[in-house]
Amino acid sequence: MEKILIKVNIVKITSMCFGDKNMKKGTLYGTHRVIEPKGSLPQPALKISNDMEIYDNEILIDVDYLNIDSASFTQLKEEAHGDMEKVKNNIIKIVVQRGKMQNPVTGSGGMLIGRVQEIGPKLSDKIELKVGDKIATLVSLSLTPLKIKKIKKINPDIDRVEIDGKAILFESGIYAKLPEDMEDTLALAALDVAGAPAQVKKLVKSGDNVLILGATGKSGLMCSCMAKQMVGMEGIVIGQARNENRAQFLSNTKFCDKVIIADVLNPVSVLEEVQKIFGEEVDITINCLSIPNTELSSILPTRNGGIVYFFSMATSFTKAALGAEGVGKDVTMIIGNGYTKNHAQITLDLLRESKVLRKIFEEKYV
Amino acid sequence: MEKILIKVNIVKITSMCFGDKNMKKGTLYGTHRVIEPKGSLPQPALKISNDMEIYDNEILIDVDYLNIDSASFTQLKEEAHGDMEKVKNNIIKIVVQRGKMQNPVTGSGGMLIGRVQEIGPKLSDKIELKVGDKIATLVSLSLTPLKIKKIKKINPDIDRVEIDGKAILFESGIYAKLPEDMEDTLALAALDVAGAPAQVKKLVKSGDNVLILGATGKSGLMCSCMAKQMVGMEGIVIGQARNENRAQFLSNTKFCDKVIIADVLNPVSVLEEVQKIFGEEVDITINCLSIPNTELSSILPTRNGGIVYFFSMATSFTKAALGAEGVGKDVTMIIGNGYTKNHAQITLDLLRESKVLRKIFEEKYV
Repeated sequence: MEKILIKVNIVKITSMCFGDKNMKKGTLYGTHRVIEPKGSLPQPALKISNDMEIYDNEILIDVDYLNIDSASFTQLKEEAHGDMEKVKNNIIKIVVQRGKMQNPVTGSGGMLIGRVQEIGPKLSDKIELKVGDKIATLVSLSLTPLKIKKIKKINPDIDRVEIDGKAILFESGIYAKLPEDMEDTLALAALDVAGAPAQVKKLVKSGDNVLILGATGKSGLMCSCMAKQMVGMEGIVIGQARNENRAQFLSNTKFCDKVIIADVLNPVSVLEEVQKIFGEEVDITINCLSIPNTELSSILPTRNGGIVYFFSMATSFTKAALGAEGVGKDVTMIIGNGYTKNHAQITLDLLRESKVLRKIFEEKYV
Repeated sequence: MEKILIKVNIVKITSMCFGDKNMKKGTLYGTHRVIEPKGSLPQPALKISNDMEIYDNEILIDVDYLNIDSASFTQLKEEAHGDMEKVKNNIIKIVVQRGKMQNPVTGSGGMLIGRVQEIGPKLSDKIELKVGDKIATLVSLSLTPLKIKKIKKINPDIDRVEIDGKAILFESGIYAKLPEDMEDTLALAALDVAGAPAQVKKLVKSGDNVLILGATGKSGLMCSCMAKQMVGMEGIVIGQARNENRAQFLSNTKFCDKVIIADVLNPVSVLEEVQKIFGEEVDITINCLSIPNTELSSILPTRNGGIVYFFSMATSFTKAALGAEGVGKDVTMIIGNGYTKNHAQITLDLLRESKVLRKIFEEKYV
């Protein structure tokens, strides 16, 4: 009740102070901030406006720190030969030039953590955020308007940059409120792969037989845990591990009904291991690997009419398309989408529900 | 009735002549023929056996001609500086070395036309083929065991190589019987993109609003024609063309309810053109373009919860995955599969049903 009152007040105050009519009207995807080249979307754009006066559908964030994407941070460190002062200067230079923290070499960004400072009047009664909320942005820094006043500290071990600065979230931008019941670092580790378990929840039905490739990795563990919840008593979850050690670790989690050891670069051996369990193919295969050339290892063990879900960013579109045709497999192949409705909530809830999963995340990924 | 009798007889004769027990047993995907490297599937393999004694689940084909894939043929011509005798020698050399016509530079193959000469006993009562049927193989030559006795003629204008030779089709191999009621060349032109309209038939439901990007191309025309049949009176098909001329041509076909002219490299303009018609996004977008960087132009005009189907082989997996996340779009993105059940039949039937489509194909693609 109190919450609602506060929100109403903010809307009123905002309207009183600025007046909707005087505020600039923004577009859904933030194209109003693109400076160069015109007509582009913010992500591929070379330069966007980081003027911190918000449009009517934007959110202003007081930024605590940036989590630079790993590929980008590695490149920055190498270019600076490990000198963190040089990395600092380079980050500032990039943000001044581009209006966003998009590494010009890797093209990638990262995410940020901060507190909501202002909400555009067009948004304020549509969303559940309020001023002061601590959030993580789940869209890439490569499209987020950013202004850095000062870099306070860099923690190179976890690619984290503490800053004094502001950022803008577009109306289409996605974010998650950071929960009170876990450390920020734990929430972040989970949110980093939030799309995967949420998509599994949408995709997998009771009674399905599911194969998780790369089940011992970060997204693989989450997908296995979620798949086990979804298949119920009638379905079976098979987790793939690459060696005896990892298979043992996976067995201990009890996320999978069966664990197989198979070389994912050998599609026939993956198929054979699955067939040893079922005598047939599975309904759904979920690829959580991070290595290339595993398209056929995902396609072969899946039955005709089944689904292959590729979360691996190392997936090749043409290898998947031609691979399925080459073996005459009538499977639906889906490109992993990092976003689906309520994905952050679904993922954080999974950590809350499974003590085993939470413990693994706290030990391995925080 | 007669057909069935004939088939039964063949099975009996085959069994009598060879006896199932003496025949070598093959695997579904033809891995029994892989010579190097062991454990590989036939397509990525460097060398497969082209011994023309069939295994129990193979089909022997008396080959009339090869349709070399366009990328491969261009490479062969360039390497031979246009000398067709040199191209002939090179093709023979490749097939001797690899046991299949897989261009070592492009990695691609093509398809073949021939007549069924022998059917393995394990297959003969499972399939509708009989000895003497004229078929086109719909799996790539890059995985098809082939032996060339003689190259009779090369027609460089249509990448066609007439040969005296034999080939093997695996149990998982897909093929189409060539129909009596149309020229082989017309059937081939359609079968080349057979997956696209068949997938549209599976995907599109009555009442759907569908956007076809690249609607004036070969697969785009087929997809538009099929989508119009599927959406019924309640749904709308929007076809995209890149200029006034092509838009006029597309309008004349009546395959689409609305035609838009939009630059597919500008996602926002595609979205705006679609919104001019609906005020909102479509349920399904089908990408039939053959140019890169059109992922976001497919994602933006599609509603949350909708489907994007990528037939374009120029699609980038990462651009699609990160693109959807970047704009916070909850769409299901599907990798176009060149194969689905009955795809050849569905595609040839579409040519039979639409006189307009057949006329365009005869004029443009034969």
